[in-house]
Amino acid sequence: MEYVRDLLWRPGLTVKELVEQFSTTGFQSIELYKAAEIMVKMKREGAKVILSFTSNMGTSGLRGLFAQLIRVKMVDIVVTTVGAIEEDIMKAIGEKFYIHRFDTDDIKLHEDGMNRVGNLLISNDSYVRFENYITHVLDEIFRKSPRISVSSLLREIGIRLDDRNSFLYQAALRGVPVLCPAITDGAMGFHLYMARQRNPDAQIDIIEDFSTLLFSLSQEDKKGLIALGGGVSKHHAMLATLLSGGADYAVYITTSHASSGSMSGATTSEAKSWGKIKDDSDSVTVIGDATILFPIAVCYALDVLSKEGIVEGV
Amino acid sequence: MEYVRDLLWRPGLTVKELVEQFSTTGFQSIELYKAAEIMVKMKREGAKVILSFTSNMGTSGLRGLFAQLIRVKMVDIVVTTVGAIEEDIMKAIGEKFYIHRFDTDDIKLHEDGMNRVGNLLISNDSYVRFENYITHVLDEIFRKSPRISVSSLLREIGIRLDDRNSFLYQAALRGVPVLCPAITDGAMGFHLYMARQRNPDAQIDIIEDFSTLLFSLSQEDKKGLIALGGGVSKHHAMLATLLSGGADYAVYITTSHASSGSMSGATTSEAKSWGKIKDDSDSVTVIGDATILFPIAVCYALDVLSKEGIVEGV
Amino acid sequence: MEYVRDLLWRPGLTVKELVEQFSTTGFQSIELYKAAEIMVKMKREGAKVILSFTSNMGTSGLRGLFAQLIRVKMVDIVVTTVGAIEEDIMKAIGEKFYIHRFDTDDIKLHEDGMNRVGNLLISNDSYVRFENYITHVLDEIFRKSPRISVSSLLREIGIRLDDRNSFLYQAALRGVPVLCPAITDGAMGFHLYMARQRNPDAQIDIIEDFSTLLFSLSQEDKKGLIALGGGVSKHHAMLATLLSGGADYAVYITTSHASSGSMSGATTSEAKSWGKIKDDSDSVTVIGDATILFPIAVCYALDVLSKEGIVEGV
Amino acid sequence: MEYVRDLLWRPGLTVKELVEQFSTTGFQSIELYKAAEIMVKMKREGAKVILSFTSNMGTSGLRGLFAQLIRVKMVDIVVTTVGAIEEDIMKAIGEKFYIHRFDTDDIKLHEDGMNRVGNLLISNDSYVRFENYITHVLDEIFRKSPRISVSSLLREIGIRLDDRNSFLYQAALRGVPVLCPAITDGAMGFHLYMARQRNPDAQIDIIEDFSTLLFSLSQEDKKGLIALGGGVSKHHAMLATLLSGGADYAVYITTSHASSGSMSGATTSEAKSWGKIKDDSDSVTVIGDATILFPIAVCYALDVLSKEGIVEGV
Repeated sequence: MEYVRDLLWRPGLTVKELVEQFSTTGFQSIELYKAAEIMVKMKREGAKVILSFTSNMGTSGLRGLFAQLIRVKMVDIVVTTVGAIEEDIMKAIGEKFYIHRFDTDDIKLHEDGMNRVGNLLISNDSYVRFENYITHVLDEIFRKSPRISVSSLLREIGIRLDDRNSFLYQAALRGVPVLCPAITDGAMGFHLYMARQRNPDAQIDIIEDFSTLLFSLSQEDKKGLIALGGGVSKHHAMLATLLSGGADYAVYITTSHASSGSMSGATTSEAKSWGKIKDDSDSVTVIGDATILFPIAVCYALDVLSKEGIVEGV
Repeated sequence: MEYVRDLLWRPGLTVKELVEQFSTTGFQSIELYKAAEIMVKMKREGAKVILSFTSNMGTSGLRGLFAQLIRVKMVDIVVTTVGAIEEDIMKAIGEKFYIHRFDTDDIKLHEDGMNRVGNLLISNDSYVRFENYITHVLDEIFRKSPRISVSSLLREIGIRLDDRNSFLYQAALRGVPVLCPAITDGAMGFHLYMARQRNPDAQIDIIEDFSTLLFSLSQEDKKGLIALGGGVSKHHAMLATLLSGGADYAVYITTSHASSGSMSGATTSEAKSWGKIKDDSDSVTVIGDATILFPIAVCYALDVLSKEGIVEGV
Repeated sequence: MEYVRDLLWRPGLTVKELVEQFSTTGFQSIELYKAAEIMVKMKREGAKVILSFTSNMGTSGLRGLFAQLIRVKMVDIVVTTVGAIEEDIMKAIGEKFYIHRFDTDDIKLHEDGMNRVGNLLISNDSYVRFENYITHVLDEIFRKSPRISVSSLLREIGIRLDDRNSFLYQAALRGVPVLCPAITDGAMGFHLYMARQRNPDAQIDIIEDFSTLLFSLSQEDKKGLIALGGGVSKHHAMLATLLSGGADYAVYITTSHASSGSMSGATTSEAKSWGKIKDDSDSVTVIGDATILFPIAVCYALDVLSKEGIVEGV
Repeated sequence: MEYVRDLLWRPGLTVKELVEQFSTTGFQSIELYKAAEIMVKMKREGAKVILSFTSNMGTSGLRGLFAQLIRVKMVDIVVTTVGAIEEDIMKAIGEKFYIHRFDTDDIKLHEDGMNRVGNLLISNDSYVRFENYITHVLDEIFRKSPRISVSSLLREIGIRLDDRNSFLYQAALRGVPVLCPAITDGAMGFHLYMARQRNPDAQIDIIEDFSTLLFSLSQEDKKGLIALGGGVSKHHAMLATLLSGGADYAVYITTSHASSGSMSGATTSEAKSWGKIKDDSDSVTVIGDATILFPIAVCYALDVLSKEGIVEGV
């Protein structure tokens, strides 16, 4: 049996070295080490990787890391919510999101045209410029393809963005499908509604997206699932693994707990009862904020995998 | 300034009397009292009430309470996820969900054909009977209306259910729209996909649903928001209030915390920065499990409102 | 196997009736029902009951309920921290604690001489009047007994209080020991330090308290453990059950989760590995705020037990 | 205003470089960066640093890091609970703690003589060898000093340990007081009780420890507070800063939230209302597991401070 070892600082300690120490530290540090190792293993063994994340992670700087993961061929399918998509576009067209505080005067922010997401702010101006941009793009797309699935729409949008750090752009470039089961749940919903006023034949074909989900992973594939946060994106990613025989590898990083029976807090163990994750899978649930935990685990995994030549580029 | 009072048991204490004591107890008990009072106030002042809840609450016995709230005219619009809809249908056609444990052998459950949601179980058999039922119903609906919005589809399904404790049935009966922005994110998605194989013209028109969202609440309406749990249903309900000038009353009950910047943990205060809730609204965020907190607050509110003749029936 | 039932409101629903419905609702409501039933069972089967709670619960209105539980002979041993003791005394000498907000201007409160505990406030004036009172009492006690154990000190203090809703008073009256393993961790510590300046022989004999802990429960006793919140009071109560062969019944109510390996989040299951709780005990961990969950479970238990004549009085 | 930047992996990224990226990532990553910076600042500006941590962190590998922090003169006062002390001694005399799982069979562990703390295990054998060791040591100490304060007792124990990674040893070596307000709340309590049977004059003088607390920090000192987890150790550390005019710098790392009004979840803001932290202090509350968050922040701080020659050695 492995035992607890004293964790020690050394000058210039790398993230990889720290994660190695985490393997014998205790509590969530051990689970985080497992998550990092499972990410290594899923790529080493040739699994197709499905990554899900919630809207707020797109608001944060993780957005660039998601793009990088697609770029280095770490991720094969993306599932997210429309907030993350809107904000990826905003950032790609040059909008800045501001760093603020959790504890603040929200009425003052409202007067100042600032919309808060935790300790970050998105200005009304960013929404206005997003509207100007997307209105034009949607018209262009609907004129060409009046009836379009969500993933095709997102590929069409992504390919136009030309921002190395945009996950929509990188996904479009590399044929990675981006699934978004609730595309109307945000400003985008309003812009789609307005687009139909101008293009009465415009149709978002969500049933077509189900076949994308269904055929993006097969029974034969080794499958790796990385779910950051919970909600509909996590559930949808697990639906993809369920329909293709269950994930072989799974990493959940979430701040939610199992006690309320919610999807966000549902563990990798619970997923086994459904067949979403295989009984004999390598899987782990890590409790904590993904803006800290995910970069740590990913830096470890990419350091290992790049040395082995399994991921390419930086 | 109000001060803390000693809470005391009396034999046969009613929920209403306990909530009254909560007003001077401390911590979340005070917030729960506020939630109960705000629910009273929103109805007393004639607000239209939008209720959102997550899938797991449909799995639980809260499902009957949601139906009752529609029946007594406490709720005017419902937003939920497709899991809750599937399970409302299952229960309406006679399926039982079993009570189990959080701490269990999920591999054994998988072998036994049991799918776990926290400490509850849904059997594979229930999914099979749901498939048999919904396949038929979808064909019937698509033959009549090949292109249909989600809320119209759910009304068509609901009207067929004939179960007093089904929220889909009660909503259909009373013209309460049920919004579900990610209708394909579950078994229903698969059945819609199969229905299209049989009915090639079948289309789910999600853009049409956006106009339902847009026109179900107006700037002139007083608006009350009750969000149980988080995720896409909470976000979508808030989109409805945002587009109609902000909620006048808001109650959030959630187990998530604001610290991760997630929608599930976002507070009523954060919502003010967006204009989702009015600056001068009556609003409160209560932290805890909705299967306990919501019935307590609702029992208080309905006891008060039924005495005032504002809600009718039981 | 028991199955989920629809929860329904009825006018004038009692807490007991609601808890009965909770038994088939789902998630934490089921666990809360179990907690209520275990509390019934521990008394019905003649167990000695040890109740632990944290300082903030003494700040809240639960303090009166704790006193009532001692009064009706529901509780045989109390373990808490010095904050709860100081505040029980303050309330007994007439101090009021104010109801405020979680989200506030703490710098302003500091200027106003108000000390915040969540959404409650204790004024500096209350600390001043506590000092005046306790200074006198400590001198009186130390003159009589220069060397005294914590539980004896607290009995001496309690007997002087004469407030029906004081748990120190009720405990003193009925010979219920109050254990407080960190008596100096608060204002009391300072007053003990000052008392020694005036009474150089004053000694708090904490080793003597260990024998109180050791002999208050025996191997032969049936033992029931109710731990509200975590920390040193929970740990100390479990030390008492560990040393006497393990609790036969255990109810934990806490907002902490097991994932961090903390005592506050440690489950009843983990306690079995230590022998703090017997392997075949009736035990449950309920996640949530004790200011809501504990009164609900207690009202159910007392309603049942008073009908059976097992508890007396109100 | 600072804005969100895309976080990117680079091969061999150091912890320090990652924390620099965290400063513009979002949510808890930003708070963690602040924590790291505040730790730099408190040392750079000559503050006396008080570190508190809970028992489970002593169980984990953080124990070695705590010893290192004392060794490199980062920490001037330590506050913890008796569990951490017992386990520091066990490790110093050669005991191993095992790495296990959160989700396990606790009854089986009990039969195997294994005591679980989250995903770690301590064997009964370790407790037996601890008893053999401490029995002898306590007799030696009590024969020399029958009446002794807790901090003096811990210095006497520490000086005997001779383990570079023991925080008791390092503290004893460097004159860093270790405060433990509830010394009897664990196996140590039992051994103190047994020691008195052999040494009837043995007295633990906790009032004397209050003067250690009182005089270890002065109004004139700049004061830095680092509180890991909550409970009595956090409260006691804050009592030290309160009595000396308030901390100038404060970092809280905790998994608890403010909503329950508990000490463990109490924020640095709440502490300002009490004067435990100065109104104009640099302070931050980071939510998450200290076994991950603390090493990250400390590695950053030590990398910066060692380059500036403010901490010495490794």
